[in-house]
Order: sequence, then structure tokens, then C-alpha cells
Amino acid sequence: MKKPLILITNDDGIHASGLRFLIETMRPLGDILIVAPDKPQSAMGHAVTILSPLRLHRIAETPGYSEYSCSGTPADCVKLGEKVILRGKPDLIVSGINHGSNASINVLYSGTMAAVIEGAMENVPAIGFSLNDYSHSADFSHCATIITSVASKVLKNGLPDGICLNVNIPARSETPIKGIKVTKQSKAFWDENFDERKDPHKRDYYWLRGEFINLDQSEDNDHWAINNNYVSVVPIQIDLTAHHLIEDIKTWDLEA
Amino acid sequence: MKKPLILITNDDGIHASGLRFLIETMRPLGDILIVAPDKPQSAMGHAVTILSPLRLHRIAETPGYSEYSCSGTPADCVKLGEKVILRGKPDLIVSGINHGSNASINVLYSGTMAAVIEGAMENVPAIGFSLNDYSHSADFSHCATIITSVASKVLKNGLPDGICLNVNIPARSETPIKGIKVTKQSKAFWDENFDERKDPHKRDYYWLRGEFINLDQSEDNDHWAINNNYVSVVPIQIDLTAHHLIEDIKTWDLEA
Repeated sequence: MKKPLILITNDDGIHASGLRFLIETMRPLGDILIVAPDKPQSAMGHAVTILSPLRLHRIAETPGYSEYSCSGTPADCVKLGEKVILRGKPDLIVSGINHGSNASINVLYSGTMAAVIEGAMENVPAIGFSLNDYSHSADFSHCATIITSVASKVLKNGLPDGICLNVNIPARSETPIKGIKVTKQSKAFWDENFDERKDPHKRDYYWLRGEFINLDQSEDNDHWAINNNYVSVVPIQIDLTAHHLIEDIKTWDLEA
Repeated sequence: MKKPLILITNDDGIHASGLRFLIETMRPLGDILIVAPDKPQSAMGHAVTILSPLRLHRIAETPGYSEYSCSGTPADCVKLGEKVILRGKPDLIVSGINHGSNASINVLYSGTMAAVIEGAMENVPAIGFSLNDYSHSADFSHCATIITSVASKVLKNGLPDGICLNVNIPARSETPIKGIKVTKQSKAFWDENFDERKDPHKRDYYWLRGEFINLDQSEDNDHWAINNNYVSVVPIQIDLTAHHLIEDIKTWDLEA
């Protein structure tokens, strides 16, 4: 039986330990193509590079395993992997493991999830994996069985067109993970401000900083799950239409 | 009565003619704060700048009108406008007029719409305006009454939390616009490839190029509307959960 072809990317860059752990976890499941950014691309959202050209650098090429870095964003990595390297589609795209949660609205800022949403746009099954631990020395060891389970199920069942998965894993702690919950995106926001500084020439500059605030009181959301030591799996769709509001807005009489 | 405060941004940059047209159209509706990127930021998606500091440059400041450029993305512009300049929220955010359609999945790549989605995340009513004409000499004159109508209705009715509007306007032609339709995001994709070139040092580089393909046979979608000379208004939500699939994925037995 032909092995599935798995495209792996991330947004923390080709050298990130989360990517290395994901690669090792995925290798038993299929042939592997890695195309990852040559530098960190966190919070790049669904940026794609259209105003400058892209570079692709081959790092390794052996039967069943090849690895490239790319000068662009995670979404660029998926496009280059498919159009230039594979000249076709992989059977699965996995992205991560992100250093930090991509629960709630972070799905919209996340480069990790942009690569996955790019897969959904092309009807390629795709999964983003994030660990709720921002530390660069984060311990990923408890993620292996979770990743293997979710990836195997997606390889077996596929995903509907335009759908991908956002998987968030609690940080490793003394308490074992309680299980895997299929949840929804929680209602939350970033309470942000800017650290205002002056450069040596007395000109102002600004660093974004913020605190994540969850407003969602339900227990079936992604933020609740990871904070209660469950893995969260959210099915994400690329149709952003608020269908339930269409009839309401039609009553606005916009042409008046 | 206090005039509404309107924050205006775009992704084509502070000098774009679409932004200038939008500013002139919005001025009768309220006090104006412009914070726009100092260079083009097309296809930046929902990128935000966290790995480098931001600059803000004041261009004009008169009662009821101020204008700034920013070194970051459209989403950064909204954040800086609110947190550094206003120290509060505007009554309305408008973004555009984009040179080119943001119908269908382009909402996910668009910097214009990222600024608007940023508003929805903060529960500030927000509207993105795009013209289906990529030309830098595009004629925006027919957009004024449409923009005034939609913006006035949003100022009057507000928008539900987490919702914004994606407005796409047909290019000016000999045929008058037939009307304004509230529609849904069409099912479409980019058929893309890379133009592969060699630099003077014989190293490869790649330019993304593509053709937009609409697969949606329905007549109530945004792509159909603009191609049939209607203005399209799509309510967009920040909740990306595919709620209809949650129960299905629960049957996958992910913990097995």
C-alpha cells in the first residue's frame, strides 16, 4: 500500500523544537515533506508574499523524507510545497507544534493555522497543533500519542471540503491529560496596549503587548478545555459568512 | 449632537487613491482619524507586528480630522489608532477602498478585511470596501453613494458583537449598478502556480501568480453579485467554528 504523503510546516521557523518534535512523530505515518519558514513568522496571519519573490532552500532529500526552508510565510510554504516541489497535493498537511495556544480568536492571527486554513482552501485535510506553553524549552513529550491519534483519524476519515482542525494541547504538568474534547472557538479578546519608548534619536516607537481575556462561560469551548487539562479539537471552516444575519441585514433597506 | 468618530485605514497604503476617495466620502459623516500603512500591505492577511517595534508618523492634526501613517500592517493600524492615538474606541472603522475584489476566500488573505475583522474582535462596527478593479487609475466615483448608504446604516443600526461587513463594488462601467445585495461568501479558489526565474547568480526565485476560479453555482453569493453588477454586502463573523461538524467528529473516538 502506498504510504500517505504528509506536508509539514510551522510558523516558528525551520529550527523550532516544536517542528522537530512534530516531524519525528509523523515519520511513522507516511512519507514526509517539510517546507518551513527560514525565520520566525509568528502572528503573520494569512499573509502571503506577492510584493517580493520567494526563495526555497533544499536542506535534505532522501527517499521518503525531504526538507526545505522558505523565505516566506507559512501560507507561502504550503503553496511552494505543492506547486514547486510536489507538483501536486499531499494527503495531509500538519502545522506546528506551535509554542503557545492558538485557541479562540488566535486562530485568526496564527501563522500555524494559516498554513492549515490554506489546506482547507485546497480541500487537503490539514491539522494545526499548538502547545499551551510559550517557553522555548517546552516539553512536547506528552503530545506524541495525541498527534498520532488525531492525524491517523484524519488520514482514515478525511475532512469535508473547506474544513480543517485546530488542535490545542495543555502544557505538560504533573496531572495527566484528561482526554480529547471536540469543542468550539471560545469568545475571548486581547486586552492590549503599547509599550511606548524613545529611540536614541528621541523618536517614539511602540511594542505591542497584551493579555488574553476569556469571556466565555460555557464549558464546551477550546479555552476552557485546555485550562482544564483536556486537548481541544475545533473544526474550523473557511466560510466566514454570518449566515444567520443575512435576512436581518436585508431589512436595512440599504438602497434607500 | 456629538459627531461619530470614524477610524479609516486600508492595505494599499497612505497614498492610495482608494483611501483618499474613502476619506472624502466619510468626512460628512463624522470626525475622522486616518491611520494607514506607510507602504502597501496587500495580502498581509491578519498579520500583526510582534517581532519588531512600530513607528507612527503624524501627517495632519486639525479639529475633526487627523491623519497618521504607521510602519505596520492594517491590523496594527487599528490597534495603534485605538490604543495610542484615541486611547479609546471609535464609533466606526472603515477600510479601503481596496483596489481589487475581496469577495469569496479573499477575505482571509486581505489586509483591508483584517483591519475590519480587528474591529469585530473589539466589538467596534467595521466595514471593508473593495472595488472590483485592480487598476491604479480605477474610477471610484460611483462608490460614494454606496459607501454613504452602507456606513450610515451601520452607524444607525450598529452590528452584533463579533460581526463586520465585507462590501464589494463592481468596477465602473457603462451599465449602472443594479442595486445592493446581502450575500454569502462564494465557494471559490485560486488556481495558482509560481513563475520560476533565475537571478544573476543563477539561483532560483519564485513569484506567486494565480487565477481566481469560482465554483459556486448559486446566485446569492458575493462573486455572482459583483459579476452581475450588484454591490455585495456579506456579514462576516470571527467565529470560525464549523459548529455543524462537532457532533460528527465526536464519533471519531479520538482517544482510542
